[in-house]
Amino acid sequence: MSAELSAELKALLDTPVFITVATIQPDGSPQVSPVWVKRDGDDLLFSTTLGRQKEKNLRRDPRLSIVVQPFDAPYSYAEIRGTAEMTEEGGQELIDELALKYVGKKYAEFNATAAQDAPRVVVRVTPRKVVGRI
Amino acid sequence: MSAELSAELKALLDTPVFITVATIQPDGSPQVSPVWVKRDGDDLLFSTTLGRQKEKNLRRDPRLSIVVQPFDAPYSYAEIRGTAEMTEEGGQELIDELALKYVGKKYAEFNATAAQDAPRVVVRVTPRKVVGRI
Repeated sequence: MSAELSAELKALLDTPVFITVATIQPDGSPQVSPVWVKRDGDDLLFSTTLGRQKEKNLRRDPRLSIVVQPFDAPYSYAEIRGTAEMTEEGGQELIDELALKYVGKKYAEFNATAAQDAPRVVVRVTPRKVVGRI
Repeated sequence: MSAELSAELKALLDTPVFITVATIQPDGSPQVSPVWVKRDGDDLLFSTTLGRQKEKNLRRDPRLSIVVQPFDAPYSYAEIRGTAEMTEEGGQELIDELALKYVGKKYAEFNATAAQDAPRVVVRVTPRKVVGRI
């Protein structure tokens, strides 16, 4: 079962809002980090790289939870619980699209060491439950 | 082993910055939500209520992870992994102190339904590892 996002939450995700993503470490404890996000219907897409902790965690256990908290309205936040699927296909295109959305330039122009990154991975999140105030 | 916070991270935590807290659900998946925070030395204090999901999760598994991401400098964030201890002692005082820090008034004046809340719980986080860019 997938969950639908409200119109307000969809609109928020289409702005350059950060999301904070929680995954599960090998020892069962949580790991959490902020990332850029793009919406595709009710799915959320974010970018990581091969071998990064988040990527390794999601490969082992695809369950994640995400907080969306707008900087200008911090009491209107949502938690989205879901599952992740990952692919390297379109990885470079996604990070460039996200960089354009968030900082108005290509990723390599934003991050001088981008060329040394491991291959880019697209993480597609299917929401299973939405909790919160949006 | 506890971890020390940098002077910059301490200073940031003394401002009204939100933290996003990840805990572990009964089924082992992550749960995540934003909260107010106060620093006490290298420990972080936040408030929850008895029986709330976060409180139940931490009672079962005290491991948590926290993102600190300043709204005005979102690329300077930190992840703090640690363990939580909880007590009801000082619970009302802490939420009132946090409300004063974040919204400049007592909690009951900020949240009209505060009187119906379950008893307030103080969550004291001892950092075990700090990752990130602050």
